[in-house]
Amino acid sequence: MSEVLWSELDALFPEMVEIRRYLHMHPEVSFQEVKTAGYIVDYYNQLGVSVRSNVGGNGVVATIKGGHPGKTVALRADFDALPIQDEKNVPYKSKVPGVMHACGHDGHTATLLVLAKVLHENRELLQGDVVLIHQHAEEYAPGGAKSMIEDGCLENVDVIFGTHLWANEPVGKIQYRVGPIMAAADRFEVTIQGKGGHGAQPHKTKDAIVIGAQLVTNVQQIVSRKVDPVQSAVVSIGSFVADNAFNVIADSAKLIGTVRTFNDDVRTQIEADLERIIHATCLMNDAGYQFDYYRGYPAVVNHPDETNFLVRIATDVPGVYEVEESPLQMGGEDFAYYLQHIKGTFFYTGAMPAQPENVYPHHHPKFDIDEKALLIAAKTLCSAVIQYQEHKDLTKAELNV
Amino acid sequence: MSEVLWSELDALFPEMVEIRRYLHMHPEVSFQEVKTAGYIVDYYNQLGVSVRSNVGGNGVVATIKGGHPGKTVALRADFDALPIQDEKNVPYKSKVPGVMHACGHDGHTATLLVLAKVLHENRELLQGDVVLIHQHAEEYAPGGAKSMIEDGCLENVDVIFGTHLWANEPVGKIQYRVGPIMAAADRFEVTIQGKGGHGAQPHKTKDAIVIGAQLVTNVQQIVSRKVDPVQSAVVSIGSFVADNAFNVIADSAKLIGTVRTFNDDVRTQIEADLERIIHATCLMNDAGYQFDYYRGYPAVVNHPDETNFLVRIATDVPGVYEVEESPLQMGGEDFAYYLQHIKGTFFYTGAMPAQPENVYPHHHPKFDIDEKALLIAAKTLCSAVIQYQEHKDLTKAELNV
Amino acid sequence: MSEVLWSELDALFPEMVEIRRYLHMHPEVSFQEVKTAGYIVDYYNQLGVSVRSNVGGNGVVATIKGGHPGKTVALRADFDALPIQDEKNVPYKSKVPGVMHACGHDGHTATLLVLAKVLHENRELLQGDVVLIHQHAEEYAPGGAKSMIEDGCLENVDVIFGTHLWANEPVGKIQYRVGPIMAAADRFEVTIQGKGGHGAQPHKTKDAIVIGAQLVTNVQQIVSRKVDPVQSAVVSIGSFVADNAFNVIADSAKLIGTVRTFNDDVRTQIEADLERIIHATCLMNDAGYQFDYYRGYPAVVNHPDETNFLVRIATDVPGVYEVEESPLQMGGEDFAYYLQHIKGTFFYTGAMPAQPENVYPHHHPKFDIDEKALLIAAKTLCSAVIQYQEHKDLTKAELNV
Amino acid sequence: MSEVLWSELDALFPEMVEIRRYLHMHPEVSFQEVKTAGYIVDYYNQLGVSVRSNVGGNGVVATIKGGHPGKTVALRADFDALPIQDEKNVPYKSKVPGVMHACGHDGHTATLLVLAKVLHENRELLQGDVVLIHQHAEEYAPGGAKSMIEDGCLENVDVIFGTHLWANEPVGKIQYRVGPIMAAADRFEVTIQGKGGHGAQPHKTKDAIVIGAQLVTNVQQIVSRKVDPVQSAVVSIGSFVADNAFNVIADSAKLIGTVRTFNDDVRTQIEADLERIIHATCLMNDAGYQFDYYRGYPAVVNHPDETNFLVRIATDVPGVYEVEESPLQMGGEDFAYYLQHIKGTFFYTGAMPAQPENVYPHHHPKFDIDEKALLIAAKTLCSAVIQYQEHKDLTKAELNV
Repeated sequence: MSEVLWSELDALFPEMVEIRRYLHMHPEVSFQEVKTAGYIVDYYNQLGVSVRSNVGGNGVVATIKGGHPGKTVALRADFDALPIQDEKNVPYKSKVPGVMHACGHDGHTATLLVLAKVLHENRELLQGDVVLIHQHAEEYAPGGAKSMIEDGCLENVDVIFGTHLWANEPVGKIQYRVGPIMAAADRFEVTIQGKGGHGAQPHKTKDAIVIGAQLVTNVQQIVSRKVDPVQSAVVSIGSFVADNAFNVIADSAKLIGTVRTFNDDVRTQIEADLERIIHATCLMNDAGYQFDYYRGYPAVVNHPDETNFLVRIATDVPGVYEVEESPLQMGGEDFAYYLQHIKGTFFYTGAMPAQPENVYPHHHPKFDIDEKALLIAAKTLCSAVIQYQEHKDLTKAELNV
Repeated sequence: MSEVLWSELDALFPEMVEIRRYLHMHPEVSFQEVKTAGYIVDYYNQLGVSVRSNVGGNGVVATIKGGHPGKTVALRADFDALPIQDEKNVPYKSKVPGVMHACGHDGHTATLLVLAKVLHENRELLQGDVVLIHQHAEEYAPGGAKSMIEDGCLENVDVIFGTHLWANEPVGKIQYRVGPIMAAADRFEVTIQGKGGHGAQPHKTKDAIVIGAQLVTNVQQIVSRKVDPVQSAVVSIGSFVADNAFNVIADSAKLIGTVRTFNDDVRTQIEADLERIIHATCLMNDAGYQFDYYRGYPAVVNHPDETNFLVRIATDVPGVYEVEESPLQMGGEDFAYYLQHIKGTFFYTGAMPAQPENVYPHHHPKFDIDEKALLIAAKTLCSAVIQYQEHKDLTKAELNV
Repeated sequence: MSEVLWSELDALFPEMVEIRRYLHMHPEVSFQEVKTAGYIVDYYNQLGVSVRSNVGGNGVVATIKGGHPGKTVALRADFDALPIQDEKNVPYKSKVPGVMHACGHDGHTATLLVLAKVLHENRELLQGDVVLIHQHAEEYAPGGAKSMIEDGCLENVDVIFGTHLWANEPVGKIQYRVGPIMAAADRFEVTIQGKGGHGAQPHKTKDAIVIGAQLVTNVQQIVSRKVDPVQSAVVSIGSFVADNAFNVIADSAKLIGTVRTFNDDVRTQIEADLERIIHATCLMNDAGYQFDYYRGYPAVVNHPDETNFLVRIATDVPGVYEVEESPLQMGGEDFAYYLQHIKGTFFYTGAMPAQPENVYPHHHPKFDIDEKALLIAAKTLCSAVIQYQEHKDLTKAELNV
Repeated sequence: MSEVLWSELDALFPEMVEIRRYLHMHPEVSFQEVKTAGYIVDYYNQLGVSVRSNVGGNGVVATIKGGHPGKTVALRADFDALPIQDEKNVPYKSKVPGVMHACGHDGHTATLLVLAKVLHENRELLQGDVVLIHQHAEEYAPGGAKSMIEDGCLENVDVIFGTHLWANEPVGKIQYRVGPIMAAADRFEVTIQGKGGHGAQPHKTKDAIVIGAQLVTNVQQIVSRKVDPVQSAVVSIGSFVADNAFNVIADSAKLIGTVRTFNDDVRTQIEADLERIIHATCLMNDAGYQFDYYRGYPAVVNHPDETNFLVRIATDVPGVYEVEESPLQMGGEDFAYYLQHIKGTFFYTGAMPAQPENVYPHHHPKFDIDEKALLIAAKTLCSAVIQYQEHKDLTKAELNV
């Protein structure tokens, strides 16, 4: 059945590009995506698909009722943009100063809308329902996923699939990973309160720079000694500021950093390790401190069976020439929350521009994608829906993995 | 003979106060003391004392020829002010916005001028010449002493005495110290050039904050391990700045600090130790650096015999009730240069205001002195001149120390 | 065809046990396994199988010519014992004082010999040759694998399989892992040559303990900052000795440690990082050093296709109830060398004794295995040979993975 | 009057040498000096001088009543030897195997006994009493001084003088120092109790070597940041032992070190700083520790007036060609306790052997002194007694300092 739908997607590719470019020209930053949400709602209304707006904020959820009873499959696309000035020279350049779809969410949305149209038109054949989750605010914690889930977007959903258009990899490549694929990305701030004084009289002070330096050094032992070496973890201090004259001793110092983990126990352990090291380092110097740890999104942890399933079906998608394991990615994604609630998998769809001079990293002012990737993403997600619903029980034997 | 001169100084005390207050109302910052220099030159011209202006800058040197051949004794007073707004409520408050005699140099100058008048009037009795060194620019390196020496102010001088009015100690107390009394105060700057990157990818970077932290820690060993423990030395890093977002790794970090020493070998050693530690710490991380070490004034190192002589004669000065050893002072003074060329000593003359509410540290916007200290300073310096010249050979036996 | 051979193995299980127990009673330590090698040679001679002795030392290689042309599959079993006193109370306890098969190599050898007998008897059916590699000296670097390879044991071999009886996991479980499964385990020694002296005169010394402490601290940054966080690596310093009186400063300090890695680039990088850090830390203190880095076995890195193949065939082996991914193991194995030359995979065969009171870790004086594991190992390896040879081209499609 | 007594001392020089050599041949180690004490008691009994034995242990105190009322002056000589094998080739070599007067206490005793004889013979002329303190156990903490004081040896004493024959300086030189002259020399031991484990599994351990290394580094900040830079202090860790195999993580580490100070507040502060740093460093790693701090003798702190007095009278002693300031000495002396109770001073009497080949440091198996130094020590102490008693009030004016 996938083949039929793939043909219809081929036919609608121009619409997909059109939508993507429209959105690209009208970006909205996280939590302010009112017009984009309206655009999506309109689209579904025109199709005659049941749609719910303002889900957990600006989120939009559409549901296609399948002709047969079966599994409910959710697909998710995010639709917020970034506070970046578009510097590309293309006709579809952003029309909003200082705001830009520099991460491909426009493409995600266009993919999902057109796929929804095709699924809707073939709804009588579906062996279950399909839920289209259009999520706002992925770029900015606390993100939109959490509140959309709280607002019921996953109700009755059996499985979820999502993809990210990936400008680092060529069109035709799909990257998967069983288990953790994207990191939990947390932030912390430490203010060391020493006691300032004259640079020539250290004994009357509590030197906040010396304490801060000890702290930076001590923190290295979290990764080198405290974390299980088969776990990946990073603790980086990006900022150290104690800005004074040369002949004083610093009264305070502020350090800001990030923690990246792929395992929740490790994440919790590192937060505790940080606190203990800060506490002891300050105690050693009879100094005070303020320590704040802000949890970002958790790690995106793909479910094994659903991921292996995705690998199998992706191999057959026209235009896909390679399905390979992704390295661990240190970036964060609030798709993580969906996978904490239900099974599913998140994968990368290669979207690197054909011309090398157009290749820029995500979040770059000249970032762009090869739009052919939208079609591959749509076909892969389409195939995931159809084949998942056709297999009532996702066991290894049945899936032939 | 001192007694006679002391009486004359007593009689001229009102003039001393008048001069001090005039100067207090008309302060000039370092290297811009043109009017003050002119005032001093005028004073000597009116006395009929030979005077040389523009010595090594704004410096003024007057010479009184003694009636008898003998030792030439130099006395030094500095006359620059500070870029501080006078906040006192007194009739002689500074008339120059943002400029103030907040360190007592006005008093030094008044003391020396009136003492010069008395010595000039009694010049026939003197067993040698007296050189009055009015130095500009003590407050701001490279200072005026060095260039005045280069311009000949110490030619034919046998010994030099200088004092600082000291608002930290009560009137009537004289503080001396054999050997080092004030520190060499140097400044250094280090810029660590690492390689920035994403906070989640430390292996692609050279983390300037981690390198800087190592450096701060390693530098502690200069004082704890490298410097002879019977020597006093301080190495303080007052500023550490690597100001970035939480999720990056710092590209560079800038550290600024000070070194205080009382011994030239130790000073030279610490500069070399710093360089070696910076070099090795950066090498360890394959990072680059820029290291600049700026020498301030050297330590003020008093000569033993001249200091012991000063102790003895100070004890007899009317109004002096205590002559005590000074602790090491971590501040700097370019009187240091004179003592590198000829023998002599630098001492503190207690000048604390009588009312506790008027007592403020040097360089404070409300700083003031008790003017009675000027008379004590003048009498002590007077006595130093007379008695030094009367003892042709300054041996222990003769001085009875 | 596997089923037939499995039945024959079932029938020969008593012989397998007998051989294992004979070897268990007559253990020989690494590089001294002359009698064991002779025993193996005799066994093949009695079978009439072509055998080559003294391969790269005490190694023995037998070759069974298959009735049909095809792939040559090698199977490897190691046969050295450990310098440990057997403390078990069993009839087959070691008869050699201080020497014991405390790691299961007796079982490996018995498994391979009996499997060879069965393969030999069915050689006409084989779709290729089988090479039986009986390796000496696995327990002690530089090990036997390297020299056996140099002596030609892998000539004309297409693929190699090996297993370790694993007392940590129950009988019936097979553990596999794609890519690295066992670590490269290296050793290093650093002697810091400072300059000793009296504890009260640090400035005349180069304090080897302070330098060593800096080194230990600096080394933490290799794992925390220099190694890609998605790579597993450990740098541990197990020994720090500078043994002196309380009132001296240490002249030298000796540090000994280990490095564990799963990736050759990381391994090479860490050795270089260590050298650079030692060099710079000593340079910082104008001290000398001696640094020696001894490479142990490289990481055992399983080939993906062969490992996935093993997973598939293992699932079907009678008695195997679970085939699961192994965690990374920090121990070393010179099976690593074979996999550097040809494709293949190394896996664990659960061998935990049934009675909990008999469960001891490998290398323990009371270590033992459940002998039923030998049969499972034999059947799995048998299946690997047969099925590998039956698939002329090991592609995913054909293997249905 | 000194001149008369000096002549008598000259005449008794042979007896002084005889006594010294007798004691040199019959040394007794600290706290076991029974025969030596008996020898001293006999000597006073033969003179007819009132003597008290077993003072605070093996101590002996004799008192000479002066013919006139006045100040009571105490002189102290220690008489214990060291557990060192005498390796000199001289007729007066130690007759006791493994015991030796390797620090000159034999000379101290001979000096004081003969001086006592002369003072006794001239007792009618004395302007006060003289107390002769023969102290046992100087070489081994807790020493004899403390218990002798507790047993009353300083009762009614106004001032105390003591000297050390000093083989590092030539005969004829006297070294004095106002204030601290010898250090407080303390010892400390730290055992870090981490949690050992396998070198490849740091996360299951508490790495005692890493903790110890942090400790060594952190301790550097006591001297560099916590102690007033104008105070001399040393904290050295002489021993760091965690002796293990290369592939383990250390369970514990033992560090032993010394603290040297010249000021009691600094001493107390450093002990507290050490405890706080150890506590916090272990807390940071959730490790335990044992910390023991053993106070040695306090610093020897000479009183200013008595020291200046000694300088003046020493200059006039026949045979003394130089009286110079001593550098701070990092060694310890329990003479410190006397100076905590009453005024006085401790000085060095040059005693370097004339032949360079006979010059060895104190505590060396070939240590010896030039016996002419005994006469100089006796004359200096004699002069101190006479002149001190003749000046009823020790003011600067009277002493002409």
